[in-house]
Amino acid sequence: MRVSSSLLLAASFFYAHGALSAPSPDPKAAWVRQGRARKAASKNGRRWLNETSTPSIVTSCSESNYTKASAPKVNVWGGLTDIEAASVTQWLFAQPELNLTVSDDAGEWDNSVLLVELMHPNKTDVLSYLDNAGPAPPRYAHVVLDHRAAVDPYYQDILVGPIEPFGVKNGTTRWVPLEYPYTRKSDGRVRNLDADADDTLYSQWIYKISATISDITLDLWGGVALGRDNDTLDIWGIDPLWQDDGRVVRWDAFWSNAVDNFDTQTLLPLGLYFRSDVTGRDPSQWKLEGWYYNGIFYETTSAFRNAYYTPGFAKLGANVEGDWARTDQNGPTLPLDTSHPPASVAPSGSRFAVDAESKWVEWMDFSFYIGYQRDTGLSLWDIRYKGQRVLYELGLQEALAHYAGQDPLQSGTAYGYDCPAYATYLNTSFYVSETTHTHLNSLCLFEFTADYPLQRHSTSDYVSATKNTYFTIRSVSTVGNYDYMFSYSFYMDGSINVEVRASGYIQSAYYANNDEYGYKIHDNLSGSMHDHILNFKADFDILGTNNTIAVVNQVPVSTVYPWSNGKARNTMKLEKSYVESEDQSRLFWGANSATQYSVINKDAVNKYGEYRGYRISPSLGAIHLTVEDSSNLANAARWANHDVQVTKQHDTEPRAAHAYNNQDVHNPPVNFDAFFNSENLTQTDLVLWLNLGMHHIPHTGDLPNTVFSTAHAGLSFSPLNYLEGDPSRQTVNQVRIEYGGGNVSAVETFGQEQGSCAVEYTPVEVDLWNYKGDVVVRKFPFDPNNPFYETDSIV
Amino acid sequence: MRVSSSLLLAASFFYAHGALSAPSPDPKAAWVRQGRARKAASKNGRRWLNETSTPSIVTSCSESNYTKASAPKVNVWGGLTDIEAASVTQWLFAQPELNLTVSDDAGEWDNSVLLVELMHPNKTDVLSYLDNAGPAPPRYAHVVLDHRAAVDPYYQDILVGPIEPFGVKNGTTRWVPLEYPYTRKSDGRVRNLDADADDTLYSQWIYKISATISDITLDLWGGVALGRDNDTLDIWGIDPLWQDDGRVVRWDAFWSNAVDNFDTQTLLPLGLYFRSDVTGRDPSQWKLEGWYYNGIFYETTSAFRNAYYTPGFAKLGANVEGDWARTDQNGPTLPLDTSHPPASVAPSGSRFAVDAESKWVEWMDFSFYIGYQRDTGLSLWDIRYKGQRVLYELGLQEALAHYAGQDPLQSGTAYGYDCPAYATYLNTSFYVSETTHTHLNSLCLFEFTADYPLQRHSTSDYVSATKNTYFTIRSVSTVGNYDYMFSYSFYMDGSINVEVRASGYIQSAYYANNDEYGYKIHDNLSGSMHDHILNFKADFDILGTNNTIAVVNQVPVSTVYPWSNGKARNTMKLEKSYVESEDQSRLFWGANSATQYSVINKDAVNKYGEYRGYRISPSLGAIHLTVEDSSNLANAARWANHDVQVTKQHDTEPRAAHAYNNQDVHNPPVNFDAFFNSENLTQTDLVLWLNLGMHHIPHTGDLPNTVFSTAHAGLSFSPLNYLEGDPSRQTVNQVRIEYGGGNVSAVETFGQEQGSCAVEYTPVEVDLWNYKGDVVVRKFPFDPNNPFYETDSIV
Repeated sequence: MRVSSSLLLAASFFYAHGALSAPSPDPKAAWVRQGRARKAASKNGRRWLNETSTPSIVTSCSESNYTKASAPKVNVWGGLTDIEAASVTQWLFAQPELNLTVSDDAGEWDNSVLLVELMHPNKTDVLSYLDNAGPAPPRYAHVVLDHRAAVDPYYQDILVGPIEPFGVKNGTTRWVPLEYPYTRKSDGRVRNLDADADDTLYSQWIYKISATISDITLDLWGGVALGRDNDTLDIWGIDPLWQDDGRVVRWDAFWSNAVDNFDTQTLLPLGLYFRSDVTGRDPSQWKLEGWYYNGIFYETTSAFRNAYYTPGFAKLGANVEGDWARTDQNGPTLPLDTSHPPASVAPSGSRFAVDAESKWVEWMDFSFYIGYQRDTGLSLWDIRYKGQRVLYELGLQEALAHYAGQDPLQSGTAYGYDCPAYATYLNTSFYVSETTHTHLNSLCLFEFTADYPLQRHSTSDYVSATKNTYFTIRSVSTVGNYDYMFSYSFYMDGSINVEVRASGYIQSAYYANNDEYGYKIHDNLSGSMHDHILNFKADFDILGTNNTIAVVNQVPVSTVYPWSNGKARNTMKLEKSYVESEDQSRLFWGANSATQYSVINKDAVNKYGEYRGYRISPSLGAIHLTVEDSSNLANAARWANHDVQVTKQHDTEPRAAHAYNNQDVHNPPVNFDAFFNSENLTQTDLVLWLNLGMHHIPHTGDLPNTVFSTAHAGLSFSPLNYLEGDPSRQTVNQVRIEYGGGNVSAVETFGQEQGSCAVEYTPVEVDLWNYKGDVVVRKFPFDPNNPFYETDSIV
Repeated sequence: MRVSSSLLLAASFFYAHGALSAPSPDPKAAWVRQGRARKAASKNGRRWLNETSTPSIVTSCSESNYTKASAPKVNVWGGLTDIEAASVTQWLFAQPELNLTVSDDAGEWDNSVLLVELMHPNKTDVLSYLDNAGPAPPRYAHVVLDHRAAVDPYYQDILVGPIEPFGVKNGTTRWVPLEYPYTRKSDGRVRNLDADADDTLYSQWIYKISATISDITLDLWGGVALGRDNDTLDIWGIDPLWQDDGRVVRWDAFWSNAVDNFDTQTLLPLGLYFRSDVTGRDPSQWKLEGWYYNGIFYETTSAFRNAYYTPGFAKLGANVEGDWARTDQNGPTLPLDTSHPPASVAPSGSRFAVDAESKWVEWMDFSFYIGYQRDTGLSLWDIRYKGQRVLYELGLQEALAHYAGQDPLQSGTAYGYDCPAYATYLNTSFYVSETTHTHLNSLCLFEFTADYPLQRHSTSDYVSATKNTYFTIRSVSTVGNYDYMFSYSFYMDGSINVEVRASGYIQSAYYANNDEYGYKIHDNLSGSMHDHILNFKADFDILGTNNTIAVVNQVPVSTVYPWSNGKARNTMKLEKSYVESEDQSRLFWGANSATQYSVINKDAVNKYGEYRGYRISPSLGAIHLTVEDSSNLANAARWANHDVQVTKQHDTEPRAAHAYNNQDVHNPPVNFDAFFNSENLTQTDLVLWLNLGMHHIPHTGDLPNTVFSTAHAGLSFSPLNYLEGDPSRQTVNQVRIEYGGGNVSAVETFGQEQGSCAVEYTPVEVDLWNYKGDVVVRKFPFDPNNPFYETDSIV
C-alpha cells in the first residue's frame, strides 16, 4: 500500500495546538511553538505609549473621523476593565487552595492562571436588561487555571464573582467550577496533555532521540536538532496527539530552520518522522515506537539505522530556502506598476458613529456592540436594523480559538493594505500571564464603495443607478503560518455579509509518495491537501426570539394544468417546508443551489401575508469537512460535518467547542453532537451554526504565500419579505438621468451634496513607520502606570 | 389541482423574444415590444456629434488616461468598418433574387435585411495568421435576411464576401447560404413565427379579442386595451410560442400601463389570460381557444362572460402603480447619507495601454482583443498572459442575444456609478435597419484596488502585505426590464474572473393561486420564480491547442498505513482522473465543492512534473436550469442543463445557440445536444461551455428593483501549477515592515513612487449632463456625414 507522509502530518494538523478550533495547518515553527509557553520574556524591550498614527490620506473636504456616539446601554460583552482584571488576578493569588505561581516563575509542576476575562452573561439576563428595563447582569470573570502540580495535570474553567465596579469584593466574591456551558460535566476540568511540552518533552525526549541519529541528519541535511542555538534543524509534531486505547502517542518530524527573517519553515519539511508513546508524566516510561522515511516504517532506531547504512538506501533531497519561499518583490517590474494604483478616499470623512468607550457602532440603519475574547476573537452583539434586533450574537466559534488570542501578531495591521487608508481603528485587549495585552488598531471600521452599483435600470428615456456603499468591520488574526481576515459587512439593502480570507505560508509536506495527497510544488515539496473549516455562530432574533427555519426548494415537476390541454408541462415549482426539530436540523446546501434556508417569524406576518425573515445564503466556500468521522478528531469537532446546523438556544450551549477539546478528543469538554437532542424548533429561540472554509490543494501559485483572492469564503444574511420594499431606496446616493436625442434633460440627485473639494493623496507607505505593536499592562502585581510595548510571540 | 398563473407566464418567459438566449423574464412592455419592429422612427430627433465627457475626477498627480499602444496584429474580430457595412448593404440591395425592401418602407409581406456584421473567421485560419505568419483571413459579412414575402416566412443567415479593404468587389463578391456553423442543415433558414407580430397580430387579433370583453376590463380595471393612444391597459404574451403538434399557440395577458415615465409595467399584471391558435398567416384561420382567470379555464368567451356576470363571481384587485414601484429616492434620509461616501481615485492616471482603433488592451502581463457582436455582445479574444495565449475566445453565448443588440439602451452608462469615475470608455457598434448604431462609452476599462490585500503574512518580527489591484473590462446590457452587467477581471496572481450581475424590474405574476410559485410581494402581486441561466464560451488554449480536462476529487477514505499500527485511519485523499470523451463531458459541480476541474496540457509539464493548467472554479451562482426537459424550450436550450460542458473545438460549432432558436424549438438552428458525439477529448482543442445564473424567487426586497449585490454570479479561471510560483510577487505594490518593541526598524517599498499629490474630488453627478446616447450612421443610402443621436428603443 502506498503511504503518504503528507497525510501523516497534514491531516493531523487540522487544528492548531491548544485548541481544536484553529482551522489552519498547525504552526509549529520554533518562534510559534514558544508562544505556548507560560513564561513572559520581554526580549524586545519596552517603549512608552504615545500617539497612534493618523490615516494617511488627509482631505480638505473633511477632516472628520467618526462621529462620537453614546451607546444606549452598557456593553455587557465589552470585557473586563484593567482594574477589574487586576482585582480578580490579585484575588485569585490570595486563594490558598489554588496554590498559584506567577507565570514568570512557574515551572512544569506549578499551577498558573492562563486566562482572566469577562464571562459573557447569559442571554436570558441580557434580554431582560436590554428589552425589559431589568438590571444589568452581574459581572463575573471567566478564569482558566492550568493545574500542573499533579501527576494528572488538568485545565480548569472557573467562575469568579460577582465583580463590583471597582473589582472583587472580599466576602462576596467566590470562585466556583465552571461547568454549565460545557457538555462534559467534570467540574470544568479537562486533562492537560501538554504540561511537559515546553521543557521536559524537548530536553528529555525529542532532542535525545534526535541525538541518536545525528550522524544521519548530518549526512542527509548537514545539520542537527539538539536544542542548541546554532541548530539548523527543528522538530515538531502532530496536534491533537493520538489518544486511542488509553495511550498518548505523538508523531514528530524534522524541518529545516529558516535561514533568515522570513517565516518559511513550514515550507521546509525533510521527510523523516518518529513516533513516541508519551503517556504520563514520567519520561522514563515513554517509548520510541518507530521511524518513518520514504514510505517505509522502521520499528526501531537500529532497524532504521541498519537500513540507512545499507548500500542502495535512497537518500532523498532536502527542501532548501530560497527566493521561491520569500514574499518580497521578485521578478521583473511589471509595466506601469511603479505608478500608483487606484485608491479609495473618503472626501466627507467617516459617515458612521462610534462610542469608542463602549464599543458601540452605528451606520445608517444598523447598530451593534463589539465583543472580543481570547478564544473566539471579534464578535458582534445586538445587531439591530431599523431599530429591531436581527442578531443577538454573530461571531467565530472555531478557528484560531486559543491561538487567536495568544498570538499577538494580529496587531500587525498595515495601514492602507489591510483596510482602506481612511479606516477608523479600535483596539482589542486580552489577558495572558498576569498582563493585559492591547492589540493597538487591531479592528478597523470603514465604508467602501464597490466597483459596481447596487441598482441600475435604463429605458429609452432614463437611467437610474444607485451607489453600492457598504460598511465593514474587520479583524486580522495570524495563526502561525496563516493569516485570517474576518470581515462583517453591512449593505444598504439590509444585507449582512460574513467573510473570511486566508493568506500566508502553507503547511507543506515532504514530496515522497505523496501524489495522492497533493501536487509536487517544489524540488522536494508537496502542497499537502487540507480543509479549512471555520464555524460561525449566528443567534438570530427576527422580531423577537421565537423563530422558525423555512426551507424552500426549487424542484422540477411535470404537471397538468387546467389550461394545458390535458398535457403535462415539464416545469418547476417551490416546495416549502420548515425544520421541525433538532432531529432534522443538521443541513447541507442543496445541489444546484436549489435550496433556500431562512430564519422567519411565523408570528410576524407582513402586509401581504408572508412571514418576515432573513435568508441565509452561501456566497462561496460554505463547505463542511471532507473527512468523515476523523480518526484525529473523534468527538472534538463534530460541528464540522455539516453546512448549516440549527439548535434551540440555551444558556448552557453558548459555544460549539472548547479551547481544550484537543486534550481529550474522545470525551472533550464540548461535544457538539450533544446539542442535538430532538428539541422542537418551531417558533422558539434558534441558533444557527454555519461553516465556512476552503478545500485547499496547494499548487505552485501558493508559493511563497497563498493569496486572499482565491482563499475566500463567505455567507450572506439578507432580508426576506422583511420590509415592504428595498430599503436602499432611502439613500440619496443614487441618480436618475432623463435623456433623449443626445441631450440630457434632467439629472436628479435627491439632495446629495454637490461641492468639489481637494484630497491630498499620500502613498500609504509613509505612515507605516508608525506601527507600534501591542501594549501590555501588568495586572499582578498591578502596574498601570508602566505600560510597555511587546509584540514578540512570547506573551 | 391548483393552478398557477405565474407558471403560465413566468416559465414561458425564460427567454426574451427574438432569441432563446435571453435569460431574463421577457420584457414585453409596449416600448420594448416596439423595439422588435423593423421600422426606424426618429421620434427623439437628431443632434450632431460632439465631444464625449471626461472623467469626473481630475488629479494633479497625473492627467493621463490610458497609454496608447499598437496591437501586434489586425483585430480580426473587430467588426466591419462603416464603409464595409455600407458597401455590403448596397450590394445586397443590388441582388434582385433577394427582393429586398428598405426597412423603413417594409411591411409584413416584404423582405428586409436584419443584420450585417463581420463574420468571425474560423479559428483554424486565425491561428495560422496569429501564430504562423499566415495571411490575415479573408473578410466576410454575416447577413441575416427576414424573408416575409411568402406564405411560409423564414429567416436566413447568409455569407457575403470576400470583402476587400474598401468593400465588396463586384464580380468577386458572392452570397451563399450560411449553414456550416449550425447543427440544422437547412440552407441557413429557420421559419419566422413573428412575421405578423407587429401589425396584423395586434390589429386583427389581439385588440379585437380584447374589444369583445371591454365591458369586463372596464368593470374590473376601468380601462381598455384597444390599440388607442389613451389605452390604460396593455396585452402581451409568451415567448417562445407553443409549437406542439404542428400548431402555433400563444398565451396573452392583460397588464396595466405605467402611468408615468417609470418602467413599471412588468410589476402590473392583471391576472386575465387568453389562448389563441395562430398557426399560419391568415388571421381568419386563427382560433381563440379559451380564457383563464383566478384558477379557472373557460373554453369560450361566452363561458367566461357568463361566469363573470353570475352573482358571486370573485372579482380580483388590480396592481396599481405607486411609489412602491418607482426607483427614485424614497423614505427618510439616512444618517450622514448626504455626505459623500468613499470613492476610488486614480492618482497616477490609468496604468494600462489601449489601441483604441484595433480594440487591443494590455495590462500588466495580460493582453487581449475586444470583439462585439449584436447577438452575443462583448467578447475577448486571444487573451494572453506573460506572452502565452490562455484563451482563444471568452464571451457570452446565450443571454441577451438578439436582444442585446437590438436594444440600444445599454449605452446608458452613468459615469461613476456603473464604473469608477476615472474609467476609460470605448464605443461599440452594431447594425440595424440599414444603419450602424454606435453605443458611445458602452465599454469601460478600469483598475480598482479591492478593500482587502492580495497577500499578507505577519510574524513577531515583520508583516508583509500586497495590494490587490485588478483590471476590469465591463459592459452593461439592458434587456427590457432587466439590466445585466458583465465584468471580466484580471488579477495579479494570473486569475481571470467572469461575473454577471442583474438589476432592474422583475417580471412579476398576478398573485391568485400562485403561492407554489412565488411569494406574495404586493397587494395583488406574486414574485414569480424564475431561473436566469447565462452560457459562456471559454475556448482555452493552454500552451497550445492540445489540452485535457483534469478532474480532482477530494474524497473521504479509511486506510491502513504502514505507520498506523495496523489500524484504519479515517482521512481523505485525492482521486485524479481526466475527461476522456464527449460521452462524459457534461459535468456538474460536485457536492461540498469537493471536485476541482482544470484545463491542463499533458505535453506541458512543469519543472516539478505536474501538468501546467488553469483551474475553473465557481465563485457563486454557477448553476444550471432547474426545469428538466422543459416543455417550453424543447431542444432550443439544451446548453442550460449542466454546469460545465466540454466539446472538441470545431469551426462548425462556434456558438451554443442561435438567435432564432425560439422560432422552431423542436428543430432549432443550433441544438447544443448535437455537439456531443463521442469525440475523444484527450490532448485536443477543447471548448468549455460554462453556465452562470440565479435561481430567483423575488421577495419584497426586489421592489422596485432587484439589486446587483444579491443577483450575482461568477466564475474564476486561475493558474494551476502554471508558473513556478505566485506571479503577484512581481508587483512593487507591496510592503514589508520590520518591527519590534513598539518601533519600526524598516519599511521596504520595493521602488514604488512615494510623492504626494493633490486630487480634486468632484461628485460624479456633475458630469452626468454629458450623456449622449447612441450615434447612428445610415448605411443605405450611405450617409456618413450626417450621424445623428438616437437612443429610443425604436432602432
